[in-house]
Amino acid sequence: MLKVNEYFDGQVQSLGFESQGERASVGVMMPGEYRFSTAAPERMTVVKGALTVKLPGHIDWETYHAGDSFEVPGDASFHVEVSQTTAYLCDYL
Amino acid sequence: MLKVNEYFDGQVQSLGFESQGERASVGVMMPGEYRFSTAAPERMTVVKGALTVKLPGHIDWETYHAGDSFEVPGDASFHVEVSQTTAYLCDYL
Repeated sequence: MLKVNEYFDGQVQSLGFESQGERASVGVMMPGEYRFSTAAPERMTVVKGALTVKLPGHIDWETYHAGDSFEVPGDASFHVEVSQTTAYLCDYL
Repeated sequence: MLKVNEYFDGQVQSLGFESQGERASVGVMMPGEYRFSTAAPERMTVVKGALTVKLPGHIDWETYHAGDSFEVPGDASFHVEVSQTTAYLCDYL
């Protein structure tokens, strides 16, 4: 089934789904700064726009553009800066 | 702003957004057969899964996988068969 999720007062919204036994979501982030926490490990892929990300344990920020991916371990948190509204895919690993 | 859209009794849902003056949406289609109508021309990109599509004026169906795109003219309709839950990006051209 599809599930609409809202985070940060609706500034980030996503549609959660399951496909061939894999859980994933597609979502959109409005411009802003966010801190996300992970339960399980996940892979984020930028679909349209760009995300500037500070991964757990990293000092530097890195910008990911459409088509780029990064992975986040489970039970961790990461920071995201969004300067343009950006669509993403999140695969739960 | 973000806008949640539901089609076909919620079997297809999307999040509409605008980024740098371009309108787009990301969405998810549950398995099924759908006929979509376009107002303006659009480009569909498969984000995860696969869409089997009969474009307007075409006789044959073609399957598009993650990363593949196809364009649909405005004021037209196209048919989609979805055998696994599939995420897509729609850019309004």
